[in-house]
Amino acid sequence: MKYAFVCRRMVGFVLLLLAVGVLANSAEAGDPLPSWNEGAAKRSIIDFVNRVTQPNSPDFVAPEQRIATFDNDGTLWSEQPMYFQLFFAIDRVKAMVPMHPEWKDKQPFKAVLEGDFKTVLAGGEHALLELVMATHAGNSTEEFSQAVKDWLATAKHPKTGRPYTDMVYQPMLELLAYLRVNGFKSYIVSGGGIEFMRPWTEGVYGIPPEQVVGSSIKTKFEMRKGQPVLVRLPEVNFIDDKAGKPVGINQHIGRRPIAAFGNSDGDLQMLQWTAAGKGARYMLIVHHTDPEREWAYDRKSKIGHLDKALDEASNSGWTVVDMKKEWKVIYPFQLK
Amino acid sequence: MKYAFVCRRMVGFVLLLLAVGVLANSAEAGDPLPSWNEGAAKRSIIDFVNRVTQPNSPDFVAPEQRIATFDNDGTLWSEQPMYFQLFFAIDRVKAMVPMHPEWKDKQPFKAVLEGDFKTVLAGGEHALLELVMATHAGNSTEEFSQAVKDWLATAKHPKTGRPYTDMVYQPMLELLAYLRVNGFKSYIVSGGGIEFMRPWTEGVYGIPPEQVVGSSIKTKFEMRKGQPVLVRLPEVNFIDDKAGKPVGINQHIGRRPIAAFGNSDGDLQMLQWTAAGKGARYMLIVHHTDPEREWAYDRKSKIGHLDKALDEASNSGWTVVDMKKEWKVIYPFQLK
Repeated sequence: MKYAFVCRRMVGFVLLLLAVGVLANSAEAGDPLPSWNEGAAKRSIIDFVNRVTQPNSPDFVAPEQRIATFDNDGTLWSEQPMYFQLFFAIDRVKAMVPMHPEWKDKQPFKAVLEGDFKTVLAGGEHALLELVMATHAGNSTEEFSQAVKDWLATAKHPKTGRPYTDMVYQPMLELLAYLRVNGFKSYIVSGGGIEFMRPWTEGVYGIPPEQVVGSSIKTKFEMRKGQPVLVRLPEVNFIDDKAGKPVGINQHIGRRPIAAFGNSDGDLQMLQWTAAGKGARYMLIVHHTDPEREWAYDRKSKIGHLDKALDEASNSGWTVVDMKKEWKVIYPFQLK
Repeated sequence: MKYAFVCRRMVGFVLLLLAVGVLANSAEAGDPLPSWNEGAAKRSIIDFVNRVTQPNSPDFVAPEQRIATFDNDGTLWSEQPMYFQLFFAIDRVKAMVPMHPEWKDKQPFKAVLEGDFKTVLAGGEHALLELVMATHAGNSTEEFSQAVKDWLATAKHPKTGRPYTDMVYQPMLELLAYLRVNGFKSYIVSGGGIEFMRPWTEGVYGIPPEQVVGSSIKTKFEMRKGQPVLVRLPEVNFIDDKAGKPVGINQHIGRRPIAAFGNSDGDLQMLQWTAAGKGARYMLIVHHTDPEREWAYDRKSKIGHLDKALDEASNSGWTVVDMKKEWKVIYPFQLK
């Protein structure tokens, strides 16, 4: 009881500090989204945040309900010429081939080792799944996490020559930070591997592992030399894509987001699920329109295929970000 | 707009000050665990929290790593004469029988309707699973959540005549609050249904839905009359018990807890997984030793079976709480 009383006294004291602090600091605020050009997209984001956070707003949303979900590939970082996790899988094949000499004569591994990505992709989803299983399973969760970190520390993107984690979108980093200071809890909800993302999302995006939702393989608890480990099995557990995204959101978060951000038809159901909730909602699609600074692709692309969701955005009034027009810079390393 | 932005930034800053303030003032605070008798268990909790939170401590743990996991049934609320979720399933059978007249002649439903729980339990896990599937699936996630809330609003425990959510342990509520002000993020990790717990854990324990891990059935995204819904399917998705607990922890949290709290062999692997991490660790078992104020059971009980974990606690120096000796009160309604 005394404890609670002191706690309440502290709240009072701190509210006083708050008042003083606001007066002293109100001039420093500046633009929360400096890499966004002034335009409809930027205005719509700031309007939405004001509507749900200002206590007198009819659309006010309590802080614990301020859940935002972000796709990763093509929404927070680039995804061309193919998903970055596939580059990781390919490099793992090369690194693991001494333990798997049979791969030299077996597809899709043979094609990977020969750099023949046309053949790899011609194998379709089945070939990709086989690649992922062979390179992502068999080890413990901690060993896998270390393998991801080791790879990111040295691997370079074939076009930019930069580490993959340099190729995150500066405007989206600003958006994540802006939502964070406004009491939002932002989640990644990606078709990519949950354990592939978790080792680096906290450092790169400020999104901790418990706020990452993704595809997964099964794991099994085992004792190894008296030590408990979680072993990664070559068996799909969950595919967090398309209609799987609302399922993953419900499973991990248990609340419906009030804002969702994507870039492809793989995000359509997440956007629909978000839009269908009560109260103020915000749905945004990153449209890749910049062949010079990034890539330009939508309805005809296999990677980041954006067709139905683009139509629905237009019909339903979701925000579509024209990357070329609305983003001053793409990547943090382009900041002056 | 600028003002609101700064104001919100200040709130974040000031909440930080508040946290620091609470830490700095803990000497003034009084007893954070007033319902715990002075003794080894209480002392060990406070010692651990001090070790991991005091900045100069060699065992200091950064706030984002302060993850604690709690079993629910028998650890945060009672579980006798049977798991409370089973009472819910039974009441659902009664409520749903007009739509399922065939249940009057079909086990285990017939036995439930006749109040013959001996026959229900004799059917073993298979009968219980059939009951849960029949009563927990078929509706949408939102309908199910409402059904849980409606039930909790009226159902009474057969022994105490109290609402089930009154039968939470006051000492554990204090422990949850104590960990919260010390920067811990506490999760429920229960064999019970994740969607059965989420509607009420925030109000009762201060644990939000996204910090609840539990067993689940599969769900499916569907459009119903143009509105997206998640439909609950009669198919097991995940059993969050025994060796499933570390798997569920890894899946949902992606970090290893530094503290874990359980009461049965169903929690053994969660405790082992927690204990095996680096740095300071805390493992606690609630031992049901109080036949007068609660129940007394351990090695021979089917519900809350505690045998191997009790031995391992003794061998490994985990804290065992003798409920009768160490808790001044059991339930909040017993507070004077």
